[in-house]
Amino acid sequence: MSGVYLYQNRLLPQEEVHISPEDRGYYFGDGIYEVFRVYNGRLYEADAHMRRLQKSAADVRIELPSEPEQLLHQLVELVAANRLTEGTVYLQITRGEASRSHPFPKAAAPVLMAFTNVLPRPLAAVQSGISIVSMDDIRWLRCDLKTLNLLPNVLAKQHALDRGAGDVVMHRGGTVTECSASNIMIVMGGRIVTHPANNLILHGITRAVVLRLANELEIAAEERPFTLSELMEADEVFITGTTAEITPVIAVDGATIGGGTSGPVTRKLQQAFERSIEAL
Amino acid sequence: MSGVYLYQNRLLPQEEVHISPEDRGYYFGDGIYEVFRVYNGRLYEADAHMRRLQKSAADVRIELPSEPEQLLHQLVELVAANRLTEGTVYLQITRGEASRSHPFPKAAAPVLMAFTNVLPRPLAAVQSGISIVSMDDIRWLRCDLKTLNLLPNVLAKQHALDRGAGDVVMHRGGTVTECSASNIMIVMGGRIVTHPANNLILHGITRAVVLRLANELEIAAEERPFTLSELMEADEVFITGTTAEITPVIAVDGATIGGGTSGPVTRKLQQAFERSIEAL
Repeated sequence: MSGVYLYQNRLLPQEEVHISPEDRGYYFGDGIYEVFRVYNGRLYEADAHMRRLQKSAADVRIELPSEPEQLLHQLVELVAANRLTEGTVYLQITRGEASRSHPFPKAAAPVLMAFTNVLPRPLAAVQSGISIVSMDDIRWLRCDLKTLNLLPNVLAKQHALDRGAGDVVMHRGGTVTECSASNIMIVMGGRIVTHPANNLILHGITRAVVLRLANELEIAAEERPFTLSELMEADEVFITGTTAEITPVIAVDGATIGGGTSGPVTRKLQQAFERSIEAL
Repeated sequence: MSGVYLYQNRLLPQEEVHISPEDRGYYFGDGIYEVFRVYNGRLYEADAHMRRLQKSAADVRIELPSEPEQLLHQLVELVAANRLTEGTVYLQITRGEASRSHPFPKAAAPVLMAFTNVLPRPLAAVQSGISIVSMDDIRWLRCDLKTLNLLPNVLAKQHALDRGAGDVVMHRGGTVTECSASNIMIVMGGRIVTHPANNLILHGITRAVVLRLANELEIAAEERPFTLSELMEADEVFITGTTAEITPVIAVDGATIGGGTSGPVTRKLQQAFERSIEAL
């Protein structure tokens, strides 16, 4: 499905976007990205995404091609050009074009590409939940950065699909980190527990939204590492993500979680999340 | 510097190579690669590189677009088209073009790109050696795969350059793994020691050549993990790589190694390596 792209500073039909074979994004994955959610034609939590992009850019030392406000303005124009009401905006920025050599190139300018996708809300999964399978987290130790080095995540997602599951839950020596493209939370005795936002997980925007909503709803939440055993024994489990929203997990490695349906804490959070979308 | 590319099955001027914005190599780094050395217009250790490419492809489940013999034949044609006598051939294969989504696409065909670079032999470094600095190895746990997810290696190389060093030596909790794009070996009491070829290091072709040459020269060699302390106290240290060849390391973190010059074991191996090039 073709559409209008933002490439550098121009809106172009997809067919006219030609990536250089010397783009460092292509041969090194030397770039960063964000995926924004669009509801009712509007960007959800746009400022939080933009702050995370700035953080990724700073840490891998890629200069953003323009100010965050200007970038956001361009994304709004892109959404309009594609007449997108419900979907996502993908934005990536690479270090630029240069002959292949590891050191940062002296004279390269960042290359920006953005496009939109029509994507209905995942209402079926949000209602019925998904099953997940566990696997070792073998990724690098800067999972907090949203970089174009996503092969481990691709292989993890495929690992789940090959086993008839919706996603993986990754762990390091039994300590649960996150899923292939979402964070994971458990509920025990009415309390939410989720991995701290350190270098081992992506600092999900929806994760932060859920913690904020939990606070407003006076649901206790704790950011601490938890184990696979705690996961298996949890009253409720759910994943959070820009496209997953708040999706219940009803089975882990074939064992049913919390009766195999969405639990009361998950449902309260889902309702509050719905209201945050409506208020957009 | 422009040249002739191999893109899919065609030889093309670089200007005519247009990468699709939907190439999974561009937004996921979902691909594999090899760098071949060319001496006197011939590919050095071509079969070993091709076997490693097949291994990378199999493990990330990318199908090679043609048989290894056919691929090699195409690279030989590429070298001829560029009239390359001394340099490298870069070959990468991505999973193909598809709308951005983590699962393997159902109908995508692999995308092959290859080009050449003029690169004189690193004679100055091979003679005088380089200094290196240590840093934590934060990469994923499949460093044996040559994938396009090279941002950690890019950042590591830049880390070294920023500190006036030629490269980094990476370690996991004090156990030395390798450099940003080469393997590392130490010599202690006439014996070579280097990290085993497991998931934590790239299985360098030059590493294998050096171990073979050591065997022929009746120099003892041991593949076992060694520590940063052993590295600092080694009689000789050298790195091995397709572009680095056998380069002595004369300082680590500012401390001189083995008198600050190339040692006798290193020199014997370098001479044998010269002969292997001449015999090509």
